[in-house]
Parts: sequence; C-alpha cells; structure tokens
Amino acid sequence: MKRIAVIEGDGIGKEVIPQALKALEALDFRFERVDLEVGYARWERTGTAISDEDIETLRSCDCILFGAITTPDDPDYESVVLKIRKGLDLYANVRPIRPIAAISGAVGHKNFDFVIVRENTEGLYSGIEDIGDDRACTTRVVTRKGSERIAQYACKLATARRKHLTIVHKSNVLKSDKLFLDTCRQIAEEEGITYDDRLVDSMAYSLIATPWKYDVVVTTNMFGDILSDMSGALVGSLGLLPSANIGNSHAFFEPVHGSAPDIAGEGYANPIAAILSAKMMLEWCREFKKASLIEEAINQTLCRNIRTPDIGGNSTTTEFGDAVAEYI
Amino acid sequence: MKRIAVIEGDGIGKEVIPQALKALEALDFRFERVDLEVGYARWERTGTAISDEDIETLRSCDCILFGAITTPDDPDYESVVLKIRKGLDLYANVRPIRPIAAISGAVGHKNFDFVIVRENTEGLYSGIEDIGDDRACTTRVVTRKGSERIAQYACKLATARRKHLTIVHKSNVLKSDKLFLDTCRQIAEEEGITYDDRLVDSMAYSLIATPWKYDVVVTTNMFGDILSDMSGALVGSLGLLPSANIGNSHAFFEPVHGSAPDIAGEGYANPIAAILSAKMMLEWCREFKKASLIEEAINQTLCRNIRTPDIGGNSTTTEFGDAVAEYI
Ligand SMILES: CC(C)[C@H](C(=O)O)[C@@H](O)C(=O)O
Ligand SMILES: CC(C)[C@H](C(=O)O)[C@@H](O)C(=O)O
Repeated sequence: MKRIAVIEGDGIGKEVIPQALKALEALDFRFERVDLEVGYARWERTGTAISDEDIETLRSCDCILFGAITTPDDPDYESVVLKIRKGLDLYANVRPIRPIAAISGAVGHKNFDFVIVRENTEGLYSGIEDIGDDRACTTRVVTRKGSERIAQYACKLATARRKHLTIVHKSNVLKSDKLFLDTCRQIAEEEGITYDDRLVDSMAYSLIATPWKYDVVVTTNMFGDILSDMSGALVGSLGLLPSANIGNSHAFFEPVHGSAPDIAGEGYANPIAAILSAKMMLEWCREFKKASLIEEAINQTLCRNIRTPDIGGNSTTTEFGDAVAEYI
Repeated sequence: MKRIAVIEGDGIGKEVIPQALKALEALDFRFERVDLEVGYARWERTGTAISDEDIETLRSCDCILFGAITTPDDPDYESVVLKIRKGLDLYANVRPIRPIAAISGAVGHKNFDFVIVRENTEGLYSGIEDIGDDRACTTRVVTRKGSERIAQYACKLATARRKHLTIVHKSNVLKSDKLFLDTCRQIAEEEGITYDDRLVDSMAYSLIATPWKYDVVVTTNMFGDILSDMSGALVGSLGLLPSANIGNSHAFFEPVHGSAPDIAGEGYANPIAAILSAKMMLEWCREFKKASLIEEAINQTLCRNIRTPDIGGNSTTTEFGDAVAEYI
C-alpha cells in the first residue's frame, strides 16, 4: 500500500482536491493518507509556509497529491512548490497536452497529443539571485548532469510514444543553452529517438498554430512553465491541465493552475485538472485500469453537460466531482 | 530628408525588403538610402557579420529598415540584431498585435488590439555568461533605470490608446522581477495609467484565450520575445507581425519573423511583416498619411485574394509586393 501525502493548499486547492479524493475512493484505491497543512494560510498564522520537517515527512511518503498554494507578494516568503521540487529532487515536470473530446479549445484544433517535459530543478529557478536597490540579477543555470537526466527522461517517454523529440531552447541568444541543446541531441542519438529543435519564440507560435507536429517536447524550466500554461488554450481552459513532478524515488502530482484567489470560495472551480492529476498518480502507481476509468468518468460527466463555468457550464465543483465519483 | 539604412540581410530578408521599398517608392517617400551588407553571408565570406564601423554608419542614419539575418550554430558568431539594438541603445521593442480583416488567425478571435512593449537591452539578453563544459550560466539583469524608461515608454503609448497597462513578470519565482514590477507600478501611478499585472505563464494562456483584455503589455526582454511570436498565431501567421526598436534618437524596423532558411529562395515568403515594418517607420517619421495608405493597400490586395501560401494563397512575394505598389 502506497503512503501518499495530501496537500490541499490554499484557494481553489481546497475545493478541487476533495473531488480528486472522492474519485480515488470510488475507485477503491487504498492508500495510507498523510494530510499536511502547508502554504500561505499557515504562513500567515505561524510565519512558516513549509518546514524542513515537512520535507522529511514528504520524503517518508511515496508521492504527493497537491492542490495549489498562494504566493504572497513578500520577498521573505519561500515557495512551497519549489521547496518540495528541490527537496525531493523531482527533476522532471511532465505536462501532457491532449484535447478533451467534449470541450472545444480557444484555438479550435483537435488533432494534437504532446507532452511537455520541463527540466524542474535549475534554469532560471536556480534561486541564485543578487538583489540590489537599482539592479537585481538572477543566474540561469544549465548543467550537463541536469540536461542529461531530463533528456533521458524525455527519450524514455518518446520511446513509449511516437518516438519524436523536439528540443526547445534559445541558443541563438543564450550561449548557455548550447549545453542544453547539445546534450539533448547526444542523448537522443544514443537512444535512437528522432529529434529536431526549435527556438522558444518560434515554438510558442508553432505550438498554437500547428500543435499536431509535436510528440515529446523537452525544454528548460522557465520555457516549460510558459509553454505549458499557454497550451491550456489549446485544450480549452487552464483548469484542465494536470502535471507530474517526477524524481528517482518520489513524485508529486498537481494541477498546472494556481490557487486562483479571484474565484476561490465560490465553489465553481474546475476540478478536472486535479482529478487528472490523481489519474497521473494512479499511472505512476501502475494502477492503469483505475487510471483509465477516471478518464472515462470525466468524459461521461462532460457529455451529460455537467461542467463548470470556465468551460461553458454552470455546475459547481462539487456537482462535477460527485458525478465523476458516481459514474465510477 | 531622412537618412535611412537598408539592410536586407539573409534568407527571406532579401525577398521581403524589396517589396517594402517598392511600397515606399510608390508613396513617393524620399529618403537618403544607405545600403549595408551585414549578416551571415558576409560572416561566411569575411569572418565578420557586422563591424563597429557599421554601427557608426548606422548611427549616422536616422533609422534602419531591416529584413532578417541567419544565426549559425557557432558560439563565435555575434548576433547582428543584438549588436544594433545595444549599439544604438534601442531600448523599446514595440510589437503591435492587431487582426488583419481579410485573414483569420489560427485562434479565431478578431476583437483584439494590443501592443507588446518589450524591454530591449537587458534581462536574459545581458550577454553576461559564464560558459563551462559542465555548467553554463547566464545572468538575467533587471535595472531600475532600464525598467523606468521602458515603463515610461509604455505609459506614453497607453496614454495615446486605451490607457491601460498590463505588467508581465515572474516575481513569484524571480525576486529580481520585483524591481521590474514595482518600478512599472510606480511609473504607471505617476502617469495616471490604470494597470494590472500578470505572471508570464498565466499571461501566455490569457493572451490566446482572451486577447481583447489587453491594451499595452510591458515586459522584460525574453518574455516579450516569446509572447510576441506566440501572438502571431492570433493574427494568423508569423509573416504578419512588424516591429520597431526605438531609442532616444534612432529606430530600427524589422519583421518579427527570422530569415526562414527552410523557405528562402523559393519566392513565396510573406512580405506583409516587412511592408508593415516600413509603415511603422513612416509613422516614426511622422508621415501618417503615407503610413495609412500602406495599410489600406495591404488590405485591398488581400481582398483581391492575392496572398502568399502561409495565409492560404498561392501568390509569390513579388506578386503581392507589386499589387501593393500598384494600388498605392
Ligand atoms: C507556482 C509556481 C512557482 C510554479 C512554477 O513557476 O513552476 C507554477 O507556475 C507551475 O507551473 O507549477
Ligand atoms: C534574432 C533574435 C536575436 C531575436 C530576439 O531574440 O530578440 C528575434 O527572435 C526577435 O524577436 O527579434
């Protein structure tokens, strides 16, 4: 039995994670549940958003199901998401982008199915900064080791898919990206994966204009952050994208969206991203049947026209979650 | 009479700039023309893509009309575009994103009209790098002075438009972006411009999903690079976006697209971005009537169904350019 930490977090995190848990319960997926209260609300109360002991607790778990956490505009606040990613060395951020049959995206394409594999530990997220009153610098770090392991992850994934890798970089401006590009090319050669590469700016265009061209897309941390949120427009809403942060021994599953303070508390947040994150968790736990039942339940629920306002309906978060659990 | 440098550059640059020049000639716009051969072809021949004397020549001109230049995968190559931007301190990169009536974008929206104002001298384009075999770093620089002047430019532009500014940043991860955000907020207050701000990832989503929400968008160098190319999908092709690089005394006008080696030499590149760049140049020269005639000529030509393949036609670059000049 897996030991799984559950972090609802702040804002709509508290609304969507219970729906994912309901689905897991309906599937009769048994796990040892470890609830953790970390994040902004706790920071306001105690001055600590997440402690080193919390990281130890998470390390004692197999994986984490996570909602969302609010980041205040306060330089002393330490990001919970980043602390967990670094603390457990979750180096691969995996974001599948696929259409959902019953939902038409803002863009109108339906024939795409790609995965963004985002390096999750370095790049502009190095945390190396030098902040002055009149000049503030951040060091963007690319290492051979970091590039190698993310390229290996991406190639492994491509092997199980359509065997194509697109390496996204900006090496015409950032000489540091040449290390990333060359390392990815080399690993792809070794693994027998066909590959090409694109500059990040032209890729942002191409992913919207011709998304069917891509299979596995590997890139550095911040570029992956931007391209994956952007791809929410292809699928139809930011409330639809799940993600997995994968390390050698742990994993952490979370919707791509944030805590959405603007709609929190109203009960209308879309729980699909959270439920699909639970689906990715089931796959990681090798519970493939249960995972595909989740997807089926979401599709059936959408076909019954139960949907939240962001995708054109007027159902509540709970109504959607209940319908999914019921179908299961 | 203005003194204007003309740089066709490489690849499709050589094909689209002549169309822009034809339009200027048809408009009877007189200028002192200074042709400059810089770029990849010259680098291959002489080992220098652009020299310091070339920058002095450009400094002796009022402005530059520029096609595109190929960047080889060679760490010794110095980017021509970046050398000109830095050399003439062209700190504001201005990229208007508006629908073209006769063209339907990949996304289907028609009701948007915003301008991306991209800081053009610092950020990840600092050129400060530390390249090792196993670790390669780039320093992302935000300065108060750099942020102030780009915010001032953006606010001035907003004043002449719908008076709204959106500040795009990633200050939840990059503490250095707090300086950018706070400086922009302060300038907007001083200038009496209403403003909001968005994280770059969520902005990438929002610009595609709800582009009508934006008027003037101000951001740092690399984020502006990515968001503007991406916005090409809203308009319908990368071949449609013009841009201006503006400094205190000089300006440099270029299509957002690159030299496109994949289609260069075939004669089917879309010249609209180049012709619209010439239009922005006319506006900068305060030739507003001539500028609007260019726009009218493009629209009329599209309505006659003369269009290049990227926007669904089969006309050549020259056919389009001829039709525009003829209409004028
Ligand atoms: C919350 C934030 C630190 C995070 C990131 O930038 O990685 C989020 O945007 C994401 O994509 O998971
Ligand atoms: C050619 C390249 C250096 C340039 C940039 O990154 O700024 C281009 O992509 C642009 O947007 O003008």
